[in-house]
Amino acid sequence: MNVALEPTDRTRIRRGRNRAVPDRAALLALLADGLVAHLGVTVGDHPVVLPTAYAVDPGGPDEGGTLYVHGSVAATWLRSSEGATVCVTVTELDGLVAGRSAFHHSMNYRSAVVIGRARLVDDADEHRHALDLIVDHMIPGRAATLRPSSRKELAATAVLAVPLHEASMKARAGGPVDEPEDVVAGVWGGHLPVCRVVDDAVPASDNLPGLSVPADVAARTRWRTPPTARGPAPAASPSPG
Amino acid sequence: MNVALEPTDRTRIRRGRNRAVPDRAALLALLADGLVAHLGVTVGDHPVVLPTAYAVDPGGPDEGGTLYVHGSVAATWLRSSEGATVCVTVTELDGLVAGRSAFHHSMNYRSAVVIGRARLVDDADEHRHALDLIVDHMIPGRAATLRPSSRKELAATAVLAVPLHEASMKARAGGPVDEPEDVVAGVWGGHLPVCRVVDDAVPASDNLPGLSVPADVAARTRWRTPPTARGPAPAASPSPG
Repeated sequence: MNVALEPTDRTRIRRGRNRAVPDRAALLALLADGLVAHLGVTVGDHPVVLPTAYAVDPGGPDEGGTLYVHGSVAATWLRSSEGATVCVTVTELDGLVAGRSAFHHSMNYRSAVVIGRARLVDDADEHRHALDLIVDHMIPGRAATLRPSSRKELAATAVLAVPLHEASMKARAGGPVDEPEDVVAGVWGGHLPVCRVVDDAVPASDNLPGLSVPADVAARTRWRTPPTARGPAPAASPSPG
Repeated sequence: MNVALEPTDRTRIRRGRNRAVPDRAALLALLADGLVAHLGVTVGDHPVVLPTAYAVDPGGPDEGGTLYVHGSVAATWLRSSEGATVCVTVTELDGLVAGRSAFHHSMNYRSAVVIGRARLVDDADEHRHALDLIVDHMIPGRAATLRPSSRKELAATAVLAVPLHEASMKARAGGPVDEPEDVVAGVWGGHLPVCRVVDDAVPASDNLPGLSVPADVAARTRWRTPPTARGPAPAASPSPG
């Protein structure tokens, strides 16, 4: 699947071309790291942007693979999206860049913008598979430990599929790039790495006595994205089962 | 400024009304915690969602206060936004919720959705003020330590203002809410707190010898959002100056 992305006019990076990453492996790595997507849909005459859980099936049925988001069947945004062109953006903030001038302040980040026609998943097998992927995206391996979803639960949950064909990615890393006169003037420049940390599991107050934290949940704790100079991340994504 | 939000039909939470937070103080607290906004604009016939730095002026000139985003004057999205209705969404992920079933998996989060007509800032004083706010939003107190932006730098940077009048907020916290039969079946449930951590400053490789990390930058390190059981956050936002 490590083919180059094929941006169209609407995903081609217009500004900051040096930050475009025409690399499907980097796109999939970012989508694996992220936990929240921001879905843009048109509602009436204006865009609405909503945070949502998501998952990716690189070998999914859509061209370039499939990105799945889910929601209640009663959600307005979901009904607005079916068959429409939507935008799904996943951003990981990696740092704050303290330049020697306001103008050269920046952020380190990785961001993917996927634009495509949203398809409502109506195949029962794809529906179940997508929901399992979304659970495993949060906690790898968890879906296989749970009972199958009931017919009622499946009926209450809609899944939208967006092709990963039309996507672009931008990234920035490292310290500031400043005006030479500000550097020689002795202004301090640098950057502050920012990461996301998953803390120890908090058991539900109504757990039966004696239950221990399952292996898949335990493996997700102390997950650190991205790893920084203060220490590498533990293994992030054990295989299910 | 702690007045209730006044959602209109387009920001009123339709799904999950129990998660709506009609409270301006909570909205401003989230916007203070967040570092990246996702801006939705209509480009051609579809929405595009882009990550962007931002800042808030609760006493800004727009109804309900002003949210500022900035970009290159040459950016397509910025030209597409002027005078148009845009959506700015800020989301903080606070946890992963491991329910006893796939259906009850969820995320803990705080998210604000602001919808409004974007105004291109053309007043010179407001322009400078907004850019200072955006720098200070990243590193509180930093703007006052920097030289004034040059005329050329200001001319290269456009600022969009969005009123904070029409906004809604949703939040989820705590453990899973499961089916009683899954609880008594002995399935483990719980949640994994997720936080954002700012690490120690990395000085630029071209800093002059002997420069030490400025107080405003040092104060930003070890910032942890939200604070969790593993330890409270240090003071996050010292006042400028």
